[in-house]
Amino acid sequence: MSEKKTIIGTHISKQFDQELEDIRERVLQMGGLVEEQFGRVMTALMDGDADQAALVAAEDYKINQFEMEIDEECVLILARRQPTASDLRLVVAVTKCIRDLERIGDETERMARMIQNSIEIESPENYYKGFLAAGESIRKLLQSTLDCFARMDVMSAVKQMREAYIIDREFHSMTKQLVDRMKKDPESITSALDMMWATRCLEKVGDHCVNILENVVYSVKGQDVRHQHLDEVEETVKQS
Amino acid sequence: MSEKKTIIGTHISKQFDQELEDIRERVLQMGGLVEEQFGRVMTALMDGDADQAALVAAEDYKINQFEMEIDEECVLILARRQPTASDLRLVVAVTKCIRDLERIGDETERMARMIQNSIEIESPENYYKGFLAAGESIRKLLQSTLDCFARMDVMSAVKQMREAYIIDREFHSMTKQLVDRMKKDPESITSALDMMWATRCLEKVGDHCVNILENVVYSVKGQDVRHQHLDEVEETVKQS
Repeated sequence: MSEKKTIIGTHISKQFDQELEDIRERVLQMGGLVEEQFGRVMTALMDGDADQAALVAAEDYKINQFEMEIDEECVLILARRQPTASDLRLVVAVTKCIRDLERIGDETERMARMIQNSIEIESPENYYKGFLAAGESIRKLLQSTLDCFARMDVMSAVKQMREAYIIDREFHSMTKQLVDRMKKDPESITSALDMMWATRCLEKVGDHCVNILENVVYSVKGQDVRHQHLDEVEETVKQS
Repeated sequence: MSEKKTIIGTHISKQFDQELEDIRERVLQMGGLVEEQFGRVMTALMDGDADQAALVAAEDYKINQFEMEIDEECVLILARRQPTASDLRLVVAVTKCIRDLERIGDETERMARMIQNSIEIESPENYYKGFLAAGESIRKLLQSTLDCFARMDVMSAVKQMREAYIIDREFHSMTKQLVDRMKKDPESITSALDMMWATRCLEKVGDHCVNILENVVYSVKGQDVRHQHLDEVEETVKQS
């Protein structure tokens, strides 16, 4: 329990706990929306549904709104409650996580716009098979990341970081395949480039998930594990 | 002057002012390094110097180190000094700005790696003419952005946001030219793709500059101007 709470007393402490709980709840709501938007883009691609993709792109502002509101709430908590120790770390971690969530929203919007341009392909579920499989891996990673945040589960966070690393390697071979396709069939350059940008978007979503997972570790353990090797991160997490 | 400082008294207030000044100074040192690294990549490209590019890529860790240290100092200030009002906003803005600076470092590293792969072009200063010109615009934008931060100059910040918007439009035509080159000469696909990724890196550096400029406005004016139209931002800044 932080010094602040002890000084102010139980009643206000409870209010403060409630405020922190509200912030966490809001982050999860925002995360839910981000996840939903991402899922809708993948479905739009599979169904060749340009209208659906346009709708997703048009709704990105809701995610931006969430970020700005939560950010403001965090600054208010810092100013009013002046949290210390783990409470402070939670608020700091939240301000960073929501930025990553907002960026995931941006990447999703970008994919939605690309899909709108390249939707006129017959049997998209075959054409986009590899991309959709990677998209499904990233969707699961995003879901698990939000789950780690909800439960502040550092062991799962490290597990998901490893998962992200494995998925990330897939992207290199996907990009290579697209380059080969372009070289063999210059007619396909425009559509292959769209797929390449979209693949890069998926990759970025994965990176943002890792950032969020790192912030879960920071919030719980008080250790900044960015730029650390995964084995080191695992060691940090195992230390009580 | 914040409530905190008045309560604690002049001496500690001076110490606190010094701490805030130190943080600002550190951000500018970090910015200086980021700017230097960026400049070195452009020179490496112009000179066709793969070794120089490799050196820049290898030194990105210094920027990461800066970010982690300043981040920690910010959390310590939040915990110990419990700043309010404009002091709090400055600390919050700093934690965001250093993240953008670190990302600019990442994009610079990425460009350095790409340049290493595609350096064997004769008279690179001609081949990369358009790219180098755009790189110079972005270098100037970065310099002005750091200058706005140093002087907390919101009017200049808005001016630079407009500049960034103009530069950003250039990138679309550059990308289009690269696509045309690929279509005409499929042999050039690999090198054109490298240029395309590098162009995207420059674009991202511009985006990060805008984020920093938005945080200058936030710090001084207390208004979150993200996602606002530039004319609205200008109105916000003009209000005293």
